[in-house]
Amino acid sequence: MKPLRVGVAGLGTVGAGVLKLLEDNGTEISARCGRAITVTAVSARDRGRDRGVDLTPYEWHDDAVALATAPDVDVVVELIGGSEGVAKDLAEAAIAGGKSFVTANKALIARHGTALARAAEEAGSTLRFEAAVAGGVPIISALQDGLAANRRDYVFGIFNGTCNYILTEMESSGRDFDEVLREAQEKGYAEADPSFDVDGVDTAHKLAILTALALGAEVDFEAIHVEGIRDISAIDIQYAAELGYRIKLLGIGRLTEHGLEQTVHPAMVPLKEAIAHVGGVVNAVVVEGSHVGRMMMEGEGAGEGPTASAVVADIISIARGVQGYSFGIPAKDLRRIEAAPIERHQGAYYFRLVVIDQPGVVADIAAILRDENVSLASLIQRGRAPGEPVSVVFITHVTDEASMKQALERMQALDSVIEPFRMIRIKDL
Amino acid sequence: MKPLRVGVAGLGTVGAGVLKLLEDNGTEISARCGRAITVTAVSARDRGRDRGVDLTPYEWHDDAVALATAPDVDVVVELIGGSEGVAKDLAEAAIAGGKSFVTANKALIARHGTALARAAEEAGSTLRFEAAVAGGVPIISALQDGLAANRRDYVFGIFNGTCNYILTEMESSGRDFDEVLREAQEKGYAEADPSFDVDGVDTAHKLAILTALALGAEVDFEAIHVEGIRDISAIDIQYAAELGYRIKLLGIGRLTEHGLEQTVHPAMVPLKEAIAHVGGVVNAVVVEGSHVGRMMMEGEGAGEGPTASAVVADIISIARGVQGYSFGIPAKDLRRIEAAPIERHQGAYYFRLVVIDQPGVVADIAAILRDENVSLASLIQRGRAPGEPVSVVFITHVTDEASMKQALERMQALDSVIEPFRMIRIKDL
Repeated sequence: MKPLRVGVAGLGTVGAGVLKLLEDNGTEISARCGRAITVTAVSARDRGRDRGVDLTPYEWHDDAVALATAPDVDVVVELIGGSEGVAKDLAEAAIAGGKSFVTANKALIARHGTALARAAEEAGSTLRFEAAVAGGVPIISALQDGLAANRRDYVFGIFNGTCNYILTEMESSGRDFDEVLREAQEKGYAEADPSFDVDGVDTAHKLAILTALALGAEVDFEAIHVEGIRDISAIDIQYAAELGYRIKLLGIGRLTEHGLEQTVHPAMVPLKEAIAHVGGVVNAVVVEGSHVGRMMMEGEGAGEGPTASAVVADIISIARGVQGYSFGIPAKDLRRIEAAPIERHQGAYYFRLVVIDQPGVVADIAAILRDENVSLASLIQRGRAPGEPVSVVFITHVTDEASMKQALERMQALDSVIEPFRMIRIKDL
Repeated sequence: MKPLRVGVAGLGTVGAGVLKLLEDNGTEISARCGRAITVTAVSARDRGRDRGVDLTPYEWHDDAVALATAPDVDVVVELIGGSEGVAKDLAEAAIAGGKSFVTANKALIARHGTALARAAEEAGSTLRFEAAVAGGVPIISALQDGLAANRRDYVFGIFNGTCNYILTEMESSGRDFDEVLREAQEKGYAEADPSFDVDGVDTAHKLAILTALALGAEVDFEAIHVEGIRDISAIDIQYAAELGYRIKLLGIGRLTEHGLEQTVHPAMVPLKEAIAHVGGVVNAVVVEGSHVGRMMMEGEGAGEGPTASAVVADIISIARGVQGYSFGIPAKDLRRIEAAPIERHQGAYYFRLVVIDQPGVVADIAAILRDENVSLASLIQRGRAPGEPVSVVFITHVTDEASMKQALERMQALDSVIEPFRMIRIKDL
């Protein structure tokens, strides 16, 4: 069989990693495909940069979009990034030309996944993006293949290694967010501008893709309710531990009676759950299937090796002639499911108030909770400090978010409440 | 596209579960395949038994092998079990006839996997067995596809839910093996004759398959060193916890400098490892890849739903026309790798001796360890009981199994050692 000819656009760490991986493991990979995989063309912004890879065997394109239409390219691999601009042009050009398209670009798929998958199916091309979600975890192919027999209406997980690293470090060292973030930046685990990670956007991109794939729904990034981890403080992590929880930034996609609930937020996860023990930069994805029950996969989320591994897995699938649907079913059949507003979320809540320790404070709070129909499961106030500020921690029974928010706003307005409240959703998995 | 016609041989819990699943999720499954999947024929020993499924739409075969050659069957699904007899005849007949063959039969694949895969490739047929290992965990397709870009030389995990349930219960209740086994039998988590599970045979079947698939080696069940969990006692579980470990029955396949090491034995797993937290009937598989790093999958191992889910995943792959190699590479290219004898195993060891508490005992033991080049990492003797039997627990540094065994035999021969020693390998993952 003829070799599969690959063009790689974008030669950053991952792009160079893909070239190296195909070279390092070429023999094994050919054996697994029944044919060779040959890189024929590459494109990047700066031709001169030393990437530790010899680029002379490959045709060079200054223009990535030209690579996408080159006659000696069967598969276009996009590792440029960004949901618009060159990456999108490249995707559209490759697909329109009937070429297979492989990408690690979660922003692109989160924003244009449905349209690109439709275009690919109409053009008879293949669109794959295993590397866009948790490179070290082959969850995309698990949802397409291994779990294909199941109805799925629930997927959640830890999709961002930077946040998980920061939260893990905060717990083990007792330090606060800013300090640990700074250290993570020094170690290269966090970007100079960390907002994409710590504000939850990256997690939301991945969630949008997984929800679509797991539930057979159109990709709907815009509908996701997103909160990051900047407001998590060491004291909340301590209380969580004391109460039998650990705080994780989760992405959660779930079909509820109010529609499709997609949320990204820090959550209190019970310590008895396996996902509570996923620490450091590791990612984990949990899927619940109608017949398979609950399945969890964990592994490295990012980095050259895992991401290159996922990109090459997609190329191998194409080399084998696997004709799968990008989102598990034909893109035209993806359902448009109404988004469930966050106010309709049902769950238990942790919240912490800093109050002046004086008679009647708890009574005022309890009255507000009663009025708003929020039922209290437990309360912790450690020690007494009459007239001084103290933290009081509350855990509620399951309630709806609208009531909880209403109650929190009213409590915040009390004179005795002197700092902004902290609220963290409890994830009863 | 024409429907894919399926014949199911064996209508126990899983067989009936496959029929139900194909009916329950038929619409979704057709959408994912781009074609319908239709069961046309079934076979079982007892036609009259009530299985909760209406069998009238299907052609009945008293003879399973006849089903395998029926003209209206494209895929033969074998759910009879056993490595010889009908199951094997059926497999050979189906494959020789160029039909696709799907099985949940781990014994069959562990003993005849290489030969069957070769026959399938020669006949242009497809052999798949996702359900043979940890039904709720799509590890087979992950190794074939998602991790295909990686060289792999290490796979391990918890492959038997019964043993994991028993060990989990022993730890949480402090009770001994026999009592917990009896309870597991009453609850239906263990068979009336539990030896297949608790003596490690089932784990070894699955390990043989995973090792072949992960490492690209011929299936070599006979070479596996197998120990079960009957000798694990509550006291060892307690000591493990105290030392920062948990005892798990692991299957481990690893390429070493002495050849291919395949072992099934109880192991002390550090509590900081994620796999130590996989409790109850859950299975977990860990694979280490050259680029992906370490990836773990966990989920239900057995039962009607997860097993049927895995069987149907294989049928869906066939319906989609996926042409994969059963063991990831052509069966003729599977390597025959020399087995590494267990005596060459390198690792740390836990052992416990019951000795008469008298002066000089520890000195005698220490002298033997020194003579055999086994270096001691720690020792626990709780309290004193002059002249009475006491347990003394030892942890060694990394040593080789031959030396450890030699030392244990010599210590056992000491007059002051009054019960058979207990030895558990420490798994530094």
